[in-house]
Amino acid sequence: MEELRGKELVEKIKAECLGFVQEHHCIPTLAVLRVGEKESDIAYEQSVKKRFQGFGLEVKDYHLDANCSNEEFMKVFRFLNDDPEIHGILVFRPLPKQINEEEMLRYMKKEKDLDGITRENLAGLLLQDENAFAPCTAEAVMQLCKHFEIPLAGKEVCIIGRSLVVGKPLAILMLNQNATVTVCHSKTENIKEVCKRADVLVAAIGRAKAIGSSYCKEGATVIDVGINVDEEGNLCGDVDFDTMKTVADKLTPVPGGLGLVTTAVLAQHLVRAYQLLEEK
Amino acid sequence: MEELRGKELVEKIKAECLGFVQEHHCIPTLAVLRVGEKESDIAYEQSVKKRFQGFGLEVKDYHLDANCSNEEFMKVFRFLNDDPEIHGILVFRPLPKQINEEEMLRYMKKEKDLDGITRENLAGLLLQDENAFAPCTAEAVMQLCKHFEIPLAGKEVCIIGRSLVVGKPLAILMLNQNATVTVCHSKTENIKEVCKRADVLVAAIGRAKAIGSSYCKEGATVIDVGINVDEEGNLCGDVDFDTMKTVADKLTPVPGGLGLVTTAVLAQHLVRAYQLLEEK
Repeated sequence: MEELRGKELVEKIKAECLGFVQEHHCIPTLAVLRVGEKESDIAYEQSVKKRFQGFGLEVKDYHLDANCSNEEFMKVFRFLNDDPEIHGILVFRPLPKQINEEEMLRYMKKEKDLDGITRENLAGLLLQDENAFAPCTAEAVMQLCKHFEIPLAGKEVCIIGRSLVVGKPLAILMLNQNATVTVCHSKTENIKEVCKRADVLVAAIGRAKAIGSSYCKEGATVIDVGINVDEEGNLCGDVDFDTMKTVADKLTPVPGGLGLVTTAVLAQHLVRAYQLLEEK
Repeated sequence: MEELRGKELVEKIKAECLGFVQEHHCIPTLAVLRVGEKESDIAYEQSVKKRFQGFGLEVKDYHLDANCSNEEFMKVFRFLNDDPEIHGILVFRPLPKQINEEEMLRYMKKEKDLDGITRENLAGLLLQDENAFAPCTAEAVMQLCKHFEIPLAGKEVCIIGRSLVVGKPLAILMLNQNATVTVCHSKTENIKEVCKRADVLVAAIGRAKAIGSSYCKEGATVIDVGINVDEEGNLCGDVDFDTMKTVADKLTPVPGGLGLVTTAVLAQHLVRAYQLLEEK
């Protein structure tokens, strides 16, 4: 079994970002907007700040109280959206219920929407618009497959999970690479049988170690999108790594697999956003 | 084998449209904009005009020369888009290459975009926005399944074809109904084997009689989206009806199947557009 580790691809993306920054003498800047004090949000924010430094990029963080009004939120959001020194905005979601997410999405510049959550970028996915941003996690799966030269054209790709941030956009991206794509989910009958047909199996359901070797064909490639915490408090994926490794031919570890790549793709999008905004 | 004929569903939709028109004393009006004299466009235009009459709806047709400039085209398009007496616009595509389709799509009011080709409506599909219009053909498949009570939740649906007007939007609509969805296409390996897993097989490739019984599991439901002309000049679908009927349990005929429903869905969208524009 070959472990598909994200590190090498991340180093490649890092070098590209650093190269751009040095050549253009610029500092693409990400605004992270967090409402409330959710532990996992804070952890991710810290990790992005630390990693982006190495990429030659800046991160500015903006915090609002969990009880802030929609007006307060939109004031900050509008400021970031209009500020020419900010090139991308990452907003932690879900937002508290008093915040009008739809209003934010309508207002958001598509160039600053690095995680592809606006209507412009979602439609761009279907339209294969090369200036649109796909959600970072979905794109990270594609880049990982490309980096490790996993054949996709004509092959059976099975995606477990149909969310708007992974399952659905990834299905479209995989179709665009000529894969035969199946999306299955909690309502799928005989799900193990369906998954066992896959040459490439992608687990994106957000449940710790839920996908074991009984979901996998001998020799398949398995990509684990999940980032969960197990009973012992350790980071783990949606895949049960220990049983899966006996069946899969290639498998991403968690941590050290796709998560790393996703943050690198966010960095790549920030650099691209800088270019798109400069061209305007 | 049961033939899934569109007539009954069409009559139901027709009654709904007539009911609305009579109750609100209004005439929802569709503008059909045709550039050039393509035979199939003219035939479809005639058929929409004739059918819509029976639905209590009006169709106004606008024709431009195949050589018209983008300025001439956009002048007419803008007029229709701004005219409060026009509630929906159907533009025959592909447009001649001198016409900037992207400019038209950017300008088009989403409420008048009955066939769901604008970015707003494409994104609405992913966002499950109930005020968005899905492409009529894809929605016709869903309504036909509902009308004939074809089980979808948990079932395997296989869509042959990945176009922006049928395959991709239909995959999303089917997922929203809890189907396990596979999209296959010209690059799919072992395509017959893949299709044979389907409880519901949808053919949308635009090739006369290309899908025969060897693609179908005994007892499956087969929906034929194709509208083609065979060697003898007769209308036919993508499915080879004569062999398919020996294997499929339920099958849409061509003509008399999905095509009728698609036009009825267009009428339904026009009535909905009238409502959305009035509410504005």
